[in-house]
Amino acid sequence: MAGEFFNVLPPDEARALLRQHLTAVLPTETLPVPEAVERVTAVAIRAPHSLPTFRRSTMDGYAVRAADTYGASESLPAFLQVIGELPMGQPANLALLPGQAALIHTGGMVPDSADAVVQVEHTQVVSQGVAGHPDTARDTLQFPLEIEVLRAVAVGQNVLQIGEDVPKGAQILPAGHWLRPQDLGGLLALGITEVAVTRRPRVGILATGDEVIPPAQTAVPGQIRDINSYTIGGQVKQAGGIPIYGGIIPDDFHALQTAAASLLAQTDMLVMSAGSSVSVRDMTVEVINSLGKPGVLLHGVATRPGKPTIVAAVAGKPVLGLPGNPVSAMIQFDMFGTLALYYLQGMPTPPRRSVVWARLTQNIASESGREDYIPARLSDGPDGLLATPVFGKSNLIYTLVNADGLIKVPLNKAGVPGGEWVEVRLF
Amino acid sequence: MAGEFFNVLPPDEARALLRQHLTAVLPTETLPVPEAVERVTAVAIRAPHSLPTFRRSTMDGYAVRAADTYGASESLPAFLQVIGELPMGQPANLALLPGQAALIHTGGMVPDSADAVVQVEHTQVVSQGVAGHPDTARDTLQFPLEIEVLRAVAVGQNVLQIGEDVPKGAQILPAGHWLRPQDLGGLLALGITEVAVTRRPRVGILATGDEVIPPAQTAVPGQIRDINSYTIGGQVKQAGGIPIYGGIIPDDFHALQTAAASLLAQTDMLVMSAGSSVSVRDMTVEVINSLGKPGVLLHGVATRPGKPTIVAAVAGKPVLGLPGNPVSAMIQFDMFGTLALYYLQGMPTPPRRSVVWARLTQNIASESGREDYIPARLSDGPDGLLATPVFGKSNLIYTLVNADGLIKVPLNKAGVPGGEWVEVRLF
Repeated sequence: MAGEFFNVLPPDEARALLRQHLTAVLPTETLPVPEAVERVTAVAIRAPHSLPTFRRSTMDGYAVRAADTYGASESLPAFLQVIGELPMGQPANLALLPGQAALIHTGGMVPDSADAVVQVEHTQVVSQGVAGHPDTARDTLQFPLEIEVLRAVAVGQNVLQIGEDVPKGAQILPAGHWLRPQDLGGLLALGITEVAVTRRPRVGILATGDEVIPPAQTAVPGQIRDINSYTIGGQVKQAGGIPIYGGIIPDDFHALQTAAASLLAQTDMLVMSAGSSVSVRDMTVEVINSLGKPGVLLHGVATRPGKPTIVAAVAGKPVLGLPGNPVSAMIQFDMFGTLALYYLQGMPTPPRRSVVWARLTQNIASESGREDYIPARLSDGPDGLLATPVFGKSNLIYTLVNADGLIKVPLNKAGVPGGEWVEVRLF
Repeated sequence: MAGEFFNVLPPDEARALLRQHLTAVLPTETLPVPEAVERVTAVAIRAPHSLPTFRRSTMDGYAVRAADTYGASESLPAFLQVIGELPMGQPANLALLPGQAALIHTGGMVPDSADAVVQVEHTQVVSQGVAGHPDTARDTLQFPLEIEVLRAVAVGQNVLQIGEDVPKGAQILPAGHWLRPQDLGGLLALGITEVAVTRRPRVGILATGDEVIPPAQTAVPGQIRDINSYTIGGQVKQAGGIPIYGGIIPDDFHALQTAAASLLAQTDMLVMSAGSSVSVRDMTVEVINSLGKPGVLLHGVATRPGKPTIVAAVAGKPVLGLPGNPVSAMIQFDMFGTLALYYLQGMPTPPRRSVVWARLTQNIASESGREDYIPARLSDGPDGLLATPVFGKSNLIYTLVNADGLIKVPLNKAGVPGGEWVEVRLF
């Protein structure tokens, strides 16, 4: 009987084994860049031109020839003649002769004849009795205008050079990159308005169990409502996937096999929340093995909660048999399902986890050789965060509802004493 | 001139000031629970009934009267007669007499006459020559069946009590709670299939600047593409809002005022990416003050990048004037805009930031009295993560594209030496 052979692997080995078998490739689709946040690039992207495309001032001030300012100081200022203003959004056509300068605004184009910008705070207008920041007094300025430069500038100072942000032809994003808001900005700045991304993975979700009823139904004693479909559905959405709910299947091999085969054919990944008893788990193993090769890769992970997790692959697609226990199901989906979704989307490594460090308020027990996840509430303490374990049996969903995260006790540790700093994964 | 009066506040004071003025309340809408992930509860929710509603076994094994097992051990087992099987999903009607037990599966209902469950691993079938786990051998079992119990159980052992997950009437979620996948599970487990949430906030976004053109347009020298609208739009989406793009407005008071007033009337929050020069900032201040009361709350935050940020409120709605510099705009939106979106949605405190700790690979300079954010790449080091600052002027969007997060240098620190551990906000 399959139930007696538990091939229990440490989590890292289990994940590596799963990954090795995920060979299905999602198709690509093209999206307008502003719509592509939290999608994954399908191909590497290069800069079609340099950015910036022209030399830009980083300050309000005066475009100058740097040599004209050498040696300038408060006590011995350099005198320059400002011959005009460089308008925003237009080519800088003013030609400066030695001793001349041009009024420039932050982001404005620096003319070819200038090689630096003196910021306005280091200058003083000597003619015209202009008060305040010349940038706000623009309307009253008349050129030519005499200024004193109170500090020398070096060649290139306060000037963004062509290609300083990104040079033409450089790879700006690799394939498999999870697009963040700044990445959209990087693309649009270069005039790239569409991006090829992997299609969002569709995840089939089945619940099994003779005792399981839809959430809208009234339960009689002995029955429980299906929540795993929807907790996992929420996790699928958070990892960029689309949940396809396959409903509740009775504990019957042929019913489950038919439903699983049909759902897997329409989706990129299949998750079965497989009841809690050994017989149901065994049936799930047999059903998965009947779907195709290689089938079940491992049946058990050295974690708590969640040891009896079935990790499988069928024709390159991930298939998971999660424990019926809602806490285990969520934690195990997070360990394998979320990861598989990132891999399916083409990411070589998943995004970094949201973790915080917190001081444990009391001892927690654990077994060495097993990775433990303990729900905890976070609060502010005198020297950082405090993590207080949420008590309750590991199959109570409210232990997770009442928690802010999961304390991770690594494989090689037997418990953690109160007062120690622990890693808490926001969950 | 407004530009000369910079009311610069530390970030925490600035945030508190903004919050105080956010009195606009978003309307509520009702959603099916499975659709409500990452939405915010509008009202507190109480448990309509206890969970579980019946006593459930946490193990595969036998429902027993605990007293029948007292003193049982491997060398001196207790003998019990198993009179039947408790089916999943049905009321447990078997009445156990002293000395009797019933086969039960994980999650199954414990009959009134039993007060504990002995897990199957601590029993042995003495009659019938049944091999293996009786749960997988169900079809071959015949009752009555004689078993030996090898370990005593206490009253209540391996049994979930009624209301142990959550008692009837308990508050299960407060108002203003950001719904996570487990929260959906907690609601559905109680038969709550719809939830009242605040409507997603609509955020009007305007770009200003004579030099700014739409991203799809070809730039001539002096022009730059509008990226701030879309980086901020991405941030808005990530915080639960809906961006409404108002386009690019020329540097003209009346044009900007008309566009801002019209967009603010249709939305819950207004963000202007306000160009970089002092004159444009001054104009933005005047425009915001013309929109309504109280108007500009502060004009300058003690952070780098991003000092010249305009934080305002108009008729209870947040209004931000962000620097034109794309890096400052994103960091400042994250500090004020993201926060305002959470407050608008009714959250008393924003969700915890995603931060990691990493060892700094080289010295970084900073000024005391200012909170600095320095883009950094993360990599794996010998004792945890390493953070390597990304160099480049603070207005280069690719410093953020090439970064994994932002190193935060607190207000009271003047730089950080290489080798120290720093907080890196994933960004």
